[in-house]
Amino acid sequence: MSKTLLHGYFRSSASFRVRIALNLKGIAYEQASRHLRKGEQRAPDFLALNAEGLVPALEIDGNVLNQSLAIVEYLEETRPAPALLPKDAAGRARARAIAYALSMEIHPINNLRVLQDIEKRFGADQKAVAEWFRHWVVTTFGPLETRLAREKETGNFCHGDAPTLADVCLVPQVFNNMRFDVDMTPYPTIARIHKACMELPAFADAAPARQPDAE
Amino acid sequence: MSKTLLHGYFRSSASFRVRIALNLKGIAYEQASRHLRKGEQRAPDFLALNAEGLVPALEIDGNVLNQSLAIVEYLEETRPAPALLPKDAAGRARARAIAYALSMEIHPINNLRVLQDIEKRFGADQKAVAEWFRHWVVTTFGPLETRLAREKETGNFCHGDAPTLADVCLVPQVFNNMRFDVDMTPYPTIARIHKACMELPAFADAAPARQPDAE
Repeated sequence: MSKTLLHGYFRSSASFRVRIALNLKGIAYEQASRHLRKGEQRAPDFLALNAEGLVPALEIDGNVLNQSLAIVEYLEETRPAPALLPKDAAGRARARAIAYALSMEIHPINNLRVLQDIEKRFGADQKAVAEWFRHWVVTTFGPLETRLAREKETGNFCHGDAPTLADVCLVPQVFNNMRFDVDMTPYPTIARIHKACMELPAFADAAPARQPDAE
Repeated sequence: MSKTLLHGYFRSSASFRVRIALNLKGIAYEQASRHLRKGEQRAPDFLALNAEGLVPALEIDGNVLNQSLAIVEYLEETRPAPALLPKDAAGRARARAIAYALSMEIHPINNLRVLQDIEKRFGADQKAVAEWFRHWVVTTFGPLETRLAREKETGNFCHGDAPTLADVCLVPQVFNNMRFDVDMTPYPTIARIHKACMELPAFADAAPARQPDAE
């Protein structure tokens, strides 16, 4: 069997998602660090693997996969147990919708390259960057808290009593929030689920500080 | 069988994606327009259905689904033919990765609420907004063109010779680009695939100008 190799960065929340999913599924893997602030994701050897020049990319089963959620879906299809999506189509749609609210409505607007861009383009200082970050978190966390609190499908985790793709996306976002002092008081359900996740080794071991390239 | 009802907006590219998928799968549906510039997506009756207050939402099979890509995956799971994802796991990962490059790296940063926000927050004028829009398109379209041009899996469409989730995301982005005068000359493969899609009634009929709420 070929080696499973994750090209990532300790602080990248998209890499963090893939680390959680690999851990939950019990897949052994090695890591190759691509330091984002040094631009290592744009090195020619990496661009040859992944033209987008973004982390993560995963070498697995002789394939090179990119885009964190496409990687998680691949792992789910090729290693179905333990499942990261519910069995029923409506439940799967709900877990995916929560995952996408986090991964499409918050993270893309708040990732490093956009924050660097608003500094350069609009002269945003550190305070303005933090306000921007918090604004996009709050815009989605409010409705997400409402949803998780009111829907009966919510359990110990975002959907039921086992972690799903939704939790895989939730935890890295909550981690990012800490770096920008997002007040979690208005989001007790999200905070509770985050805590439940972090009690599992699969999540705890995937945390940025525990990675070989952590600074 | 209960009525299938799409809550959307003619110009919303996430709604456009769902219209294409419904058409490709031959699912009859009605539309309820939620005018984004008038804030109709934040009306109490809609928030009761979809706490996020974003279009699209789809009422189908007694469920209310949200997040365009979660809806498309649901349609794929419940109405597998014609397939919108390849059969093999690696192919599915590739189609999803292309879809996510479009729907996670470009669209969230360029959607209406972010454009309105940079106007208000940073005083961006119409020219600056257009530059912002084009910057995020070019950042992803360059690598995407490289990928589509160099990988043998690319066919008449993004993946093979039938439309997939990748094309469902590609066409609305190219439509949006036209509104901001993105030069498509550097992207001949993308332009070719867009043209092939628009020759299919499923795509053409989903276009913004053909919707009942078009202005």
